[in-house]
Amino acid sequence: MAAPYYRPVGKEVEIFDAAAAQRLPLLLKGPTGSGKSRFLEAMAQRLGRRLITVVCNDETSAIDLVGRYLVKGSDTYWLDGPLTTAVRSGAILYIDEIAEARPDTMVVLHSLTDHRRELFVERLGETIAGHVDFLLVASFNPGYQKGFKELKPSTRQRFIAIDFNYPRAEIEAEIVQEETGCEAQLAQRLVKLAGVIRARPELGLAETVSTRLLVSVAKLVRNGLPPRLAVHTGLVLPLSDDADTVTALQDFANLVL
Amino acid sequence: MAAPYYRPVGKEVEIFDAAAAQRLPLLLKGPTGSGKSRFLEAMAQRLGRRLITVVCNDETSAIDLVGRYLVKGSDTYWLDGPLTTAVRSGAILYIDEIAEARPDTMVVLHSLTDHRRELFVERLGETIAGHVDFLLVASFNPGYQKGFKELKPSTRQRFIAIDFNYPRAEIEAEIVQEETGCEAQLAQRLVKLAGVIRARPELGLAETVSTRLLVSVAKLVRNGLPPRLAVHTGLVLPLSDDADTVTALQDFANLVL
Amino acid sequence: MAAPYYRPVGKEVEIFDAAAAQRLPLLLKGPTGSGKSRFLEAMAQRLGRRLITVVCNDETSAIDLVGRYLVKGSDTYWLDGPLTTAVRSGAILYIDEIAEARPDTMVVLHSLTDHRRELFVERLGETIAGHVDFLLVASFNPGYQKGFKELKPSTRQRFIAIDFNYPRAEIEAEIVQEETGCEAQLAQRLVKLAGVIRARPELGLAETVSTRLLVSVAKLVRNGLPPRLAVHTGLVLPLSDDADTVTALQDFANLVL
Amino acid sequence: MAAPYYRPVGKEVEIFDAAAAQRLPLLLKGPTGSGKSRFLEAMAQRLGRRLITVVCNDETSAIDLVGRYLVKGSDTYWLDGPLTTAVRSGAILYIDEIAEARPDTMVVLHSLTDHRRELFVERLGETIAGHVDFLLVASFNPGYQKGFKELKPSTRQRFIAIDFNYPRAEIEAEIVQEETGCEAQLAQRLVKLAGVIRARPELGLAETVSTRLLVSVAKLVRNGLPPRLAVHTGLVLPLSDDADTVTALQDFANLVL
Amino acid sequence: MAAPYYRPVGKEVEIFDAAAAQRLPLLLKGPTGSGKSRFLEAMAQRLGRRLITVVCNDETSAIDLVGRYLVKGSDTYWLDGPLTTAVRSGAILYIDEIAEARPDTMVVLHSLTDHRRELFVERLGETIAGHVDFLLVASFNPGYQKGFKELKPSTRQRFIAIDFNYPRAEIEAEIVQEETGCEAQLAQRLVKLAGVIRARPELGLAETVSTRLLVSVAKLVRNGLPPRLAVHTGLVLPLSDDADTVTALQDFANLVL
Amino acid sequence: MAAPYYRPVGKEVEIFDAAAAQRLPLLLKGPTGSGKSRFLEAMAQRLGRRLITVVCNDETSAIDLVGRYLVKGSDTYWLDGPLTTAVRSGAILYIDEIAEARPDTMVVLHSLTDHRRELFVERLGETIAGHVDFLLVASFNPGYQKGFKELKPSTRQRFIAIDFNYPRAEIEAEIVQEETGCEAQLAQRLVKLAGVIRARPELGLAETVSTRLLVSVAKLVRNGLPPRLAVHTGLVLPLSDDADTVTALQDFANLVL
Repeated sequence: MAAPYYRPVGKEVEIFDAAAAQRLPLLLKGPTGSGKSRFLEAMAQRLGRRLITVVCNDETSAIDLVGRYLVKGSDTYWLDGPLTTAVRSGAILYIDEIAEARPDTMVVLHSLTDHRRELFVERLGETIAGHVDFLLVASFNPGYQKGFKELKPSTRQRFIAIDFNYPRAEIEAEIVQEETGCEAQLAQRLVKLAGVIRARPELGLAETVSTRLLVSVAKLVRNGLPPRLAVHTGLVLPLSDDADTVTALQDFANLVL
Repeated sequence: MAAPYYRPVGKEVEIFDAAAAQRLPLLLKGPTGSGKSRFLEAMAQRLGRRLITVVCNDETSAIDLVGRYLVKGSDTYWLDGPLTTAVRSGAILYIDEIAEARPDTMVVLHSLTDHRRELFVERLGETIAGHVDFLLVASFNPGYQKGFKELKPSTRQRFIAIDFNYPRAEIEAEIVQEETGCEAQLAQRLVKLAGVIRARPELGLAETVSTRLLVSVAKLVRNGLPPRLAVHTGLVLPLSDDADTVTALQDFANLVL
Repeated sequence: MAAPYYRPVGKEVEIFDAAAAQRLPLLLKGPTGSGKSRFLEAMAQRLGRRLITVVCNDETSAIDLVGRYLVKGSDTYWLDGPLTTAVRSGAILYIDEIAEARPDTMVVLHSLTDHRRELFVERLGETIAGHVDFLLVASFNPGYQKGFKELKPSTRQRFIAIDFNYPRAEIEAEIVQEETGCEAQLAQRLVKLAGVIRARPELGLAETVSTRLLVSVAKLVRNGLPPRLAVHTGLVLPLSDDADTVTALQDFANLVL
Repeated sequence: MAAPYYRPVGKEVEIFDAAAAQRLPLLLKGPTGSGKSRFLEAMAQRLGRRLITVVCNDETSAIDLVGRYLVKGSDTYWLDGPLTTAVRSGAILYIDEIAEARPDTMVVLHSLTDHRRELFVERLGETIAGHVDFLLVASFNPGYQKGFKELKPSTRQRFIAIDFNYPRAEIEAEIVQEETGCEAQLAQRLVKLAGVIRARPELGLAETVSTRLLVSVAKLVRNGLPPRLAVHTGLVLPLSDDADTVTALQDFANLVL
Repeated sequence: MAAPYYRPVGKEVEIFDAAAAQRLPLLLKGPTGSGKSRFLEAMAQRLGRRLITVVCNDETSAIDLVGRYLVKGSDTYWLDGPLTTAVRSGAILYIDEIAEARPDTMVVLHSLTDHRRELFVERLGETIAGHVDFLLVASFNPGYQKGFKELKPSTRQRFIAIDFNYPRAEIEAEIVQEETGCEAQLAQRLVKLAGVIRARPELGLAETVSTRLLVSVAKLVRNGLPPRLAVHTGLVLPLSDDADTVTALQDFANLVL
Repeated sequence: MAAPYYRPVGKEVEIFDAAAAQRLPLLLKGPTGSGKSRFLEAMAQRLGRRLITVVCNDETSAIDLVGRYLVKGSDTYWLDGPLTTAVRSGAILYIDEIAEARPDTMVVLHSLTDHRRELFVERLGETIAGHVDFLLVASFNPGYQKGFKELKPSTRQRFIAIDFNYPRAEIEAEIVQEETGCEAQLAQRLVKLAGVIRARPELGLAETVSTRLLVSVAKLVRNGLPPRLAVHTGLVLPLSDDADTVTALQDFANLVL
């Protein structure tokens, strides 16, 4: 896969370099679609390291990271999980949405994130020293489900952190244009619309407009949909099911476009 | 199976075409029996693509989409799930009632719904690039269980959306007639009755009259039941168990028919 | 098994015939012991179709309807579940107390209850078209656990419905006599007692006297128990554990008998 | 095992005979230690029928009644559960504390407790007609966990019922003496003490003194413990952990003995 | 293992003898560290019977008591659980903290604790008569989790009971000295401190000082720690995490020592 | 692995020696990053004993400590768990975050933590006497989830305890310098900043600054990040997601640095 387009918005590259040099585990904090995954892909390519991604959910457990025995016919063989693979080979392991995973997932990371820097694989009876290039990165969306699913302090304090947020208007417009090949004016108007909506917490959206939505809208316009219908389809309806909120959002769109 | 009868009620065909051209995941929002599934069947036939449907429930999990190892005698073999089949072969995968499924179901879709457009099958250790014709469509009923089972923002913002609702009276009557071969007058009166009931939220129905119910009533009449008994059997009792509501609904029916 | 005794109390036979002719799924609504199961047995015999019954509980799941792989020694073979058997062979499938079952049970019925009329058996990778004689019937007791276990609207609107209730006094007495061979006077008095109790919601019974209880009492009397003891044993104690309610019920019985 | 000692306290034998003759399922209602199990053992011996007992708990399920496949080496064989054994062989099946069992346990009894009188064993694909001597008996303690674990009306109305309670003073004293060989005076005083405690609901006991406790006390006295210590050990401490209640109970004991 | 040191504090030995002679199940009630287990060890040695102990927890189930099939290579064999072993061989089975176990654990004891005195092992299809020397003893801590985890009355009334509490001061000091070889004065002061703390429910301790803690402190002093540090380490910190309570406890200690 | 750097802050070494000599189980109480694990590593090296660590989580159960049967092809073999290994070989078993584990984990420790000092391995039918050098150590963080996950008193009173807290300023600065090679002034300022934050409970942090965070910051500075950005990345963002708290923390940092 070719290197993804990535446009730095702050000091995130410098921080990443320091974390990689000091082998400090790194936590990417920020909302949906703010570019966390894309940033990490670019950084992995920059360092020439393999990136292994695990997207967590309610049922992700330590075994999903470490590995398991599989049975094939009458043979049993061990399959390294993504964490074990990364620890052995010096890859970057990206644990996306770490707060969603089951608690045993955190615990297996402890010995890798302190002075020991080693992984104990109980089922193999084997302790694996972390490869010199192994790096642990996790992501976390603090705005979503505030107070519900949080990381335990004993896990959090094992990571240094970078805050991601939506890029400045000029940069965001540049991203939309680069991703869709749309006209500059459309990109600017969509970014303006995003700014208007993001500035209104009273809309009560579970999460506000991401850059990803702007890209979807621009693609629909490029494919011939009228801008207002494209915004309705690609931005308004994905953001809300509530009739009043849908009307309010569409009104903002009609004003800005 | 022959192409189902489908009567467009808005710009949904144009939006579908743009989504398919841009390979944007598509969310069909709307109440029970508003024609979401039928619309998609018609679109799949129009594009000449295979449609694979998964109806979700509380226990639908990623494994149900991706596939699993089966044991047959002493042999073990892998069986692609519907998602994997669709990704490989370029089919349309329809995830009906996606909000019902378990959270890991969403997560497995992430890499297919962003710039990566690929599926990682952990159990096979294989990453499958999405076929150029692969398209992901999901349905969601926002009125039902409001605030209870909702899609996470990080999932929603990966889809563009179309709103489905009950069709305009003329179109709905046309559908009832087309589906049952009943007389125009009966179809019109049933649609009028539906309009009366849909306009009365004070009835407190969990969900209001769908076109499907009108079709059932027309079929019962075609089979010789008197219209009032047909409405009682095919519309009133399916909508409510409450004695007062049943009486109110039947009164409306008696007035309109 | 010989055809059970069944005494129609309304238009239920005509509605059943129309549902069978139009292949509309049918929901039997009504309290315990109001004759729903017996009605369906009689209808199945009338049409000369096989009746397959599944009584649902909290743990009934789709697999219980569709079928499963069984292991016998080193062989594995597939066993069709009751739904699959009925779909293939054109039997009537009766899903008794459908609201008790787990949600995935409903979902598996969806494609059988709309224009598709087919069953997808994921484990076999097989889609089975519904036999021309296949008919789906379910039962539901709306009075019991009101507001607790209800059918989702998206399931309910797939069925037409018949309301069952206790039969008129003359018919109920006829049923009691027919079932037990007791004297007409006893049957009439028991039905009168049932009427008295059913008319008193202030007794706070979880469910009121069913015809089945009257039959039990008549059988005990036929076996030599004094009527009051028979009512105490066969009607009062089965209805309540509360001392005051037991006394009140027995007082009614002593008055009427 | 020799026939247990059983002393009738009401019309329970006559009712049992009628239930057995009419093959009506029978529910024994009453508190702990009121002689339900012992009564049934005596009745089974009287009829010369085998008695099979299942004591239910939170995890008792249909499979525990019906049977299961067992694996032994590479062979798989079916083992009839207690219900299946009783249905085939004409035994009495006693389901002790039926309200504790999981809901699927009730459901499997339905076809055995109405006009069908047959058991469908899904795993065997076999329908077993009830042996002419098969009888179903269940027990239920209505005072315990009132309003918490109750039988569903659709299950209750399938049984006729007998109320058990503590026997009259003379009979209870007779039972204590018969069971322990203690002196008449001690038995009478213990029964008097039981009467005093049973008449005081303000003590707030989860359940009051059973005949079984009186028997324990009499045995301890027969083995040389002083009566007051025997009552403390065999009656007071088993009834309560609360210091005030323990004192109150012991005060009653000291007064009566 | 040599007989443990046990110092009777009341009539518990006489009661135990009567229970053993009459084969009455015995419940040991009392707080942590009050000597219940040690008492039973001494009684078992006195009678020359084997003592088998099961410490219950939230997941202890009937199968843990009765036994299970184990698979070894292609062979399957049955392993008697501790209850079955005790029933067959005439040992004393000690079910420690019985209220913690899962409810099916109680139920399996029922037939062993009434006139039947036999164990039915369903998986073996075998009924095992209790050995003449088999004795069932259970422990229960009524002060801990009051009102949360309690024994069902139908279980409790199957046991006679002994109350355990902390021993009188002279006896407790004797025990501390005997166990640690410390000086009489230290033992007396520690017991005095225990008395002071036990008399202050306002400290809000989940459970108060046990004799075991006093023994720990005396051991630490014997190993050279200063008494105040030994009390802090062996008594104060094990009792509380609350800063104010820790200070209060240490103040008492400083006063008494 | 070389002996880790450990700097005693109180009498913890003396207490450890007494516990080891008397074989008293030891509980290390204290917040995240206060050096509990590192202390124990140093003590194990000092005694020349092997240290085996188990980090507990919500799903840690007795089987994870004791061992299990594994299947490899057609062979089954037993694998000792970490507890069994430690008991047999005389190692130190460290149960990190013991309060997180499932309750059966505690129960398996009971016979090892009283006068018996032996482990019963039910699956092996084997009782293993504790090696003379076996020592049990557990850790517990009382500040975290206060009142939520606590140790049962019957478990706590089996341990003596040491309180860990953050070291005095001079010692903490020494640790930061030793671990990172940073300049003395930076270490002192970071420790001063930690003191300022720790003294402000009104910040409402789930857990306050650990020494570990100070070390992370010093490493980032050593790698060239400006101190304020290093503190933002390595201390502020790991401690809080709340915008106001983040600002307050950064203000403190800007003042102190």
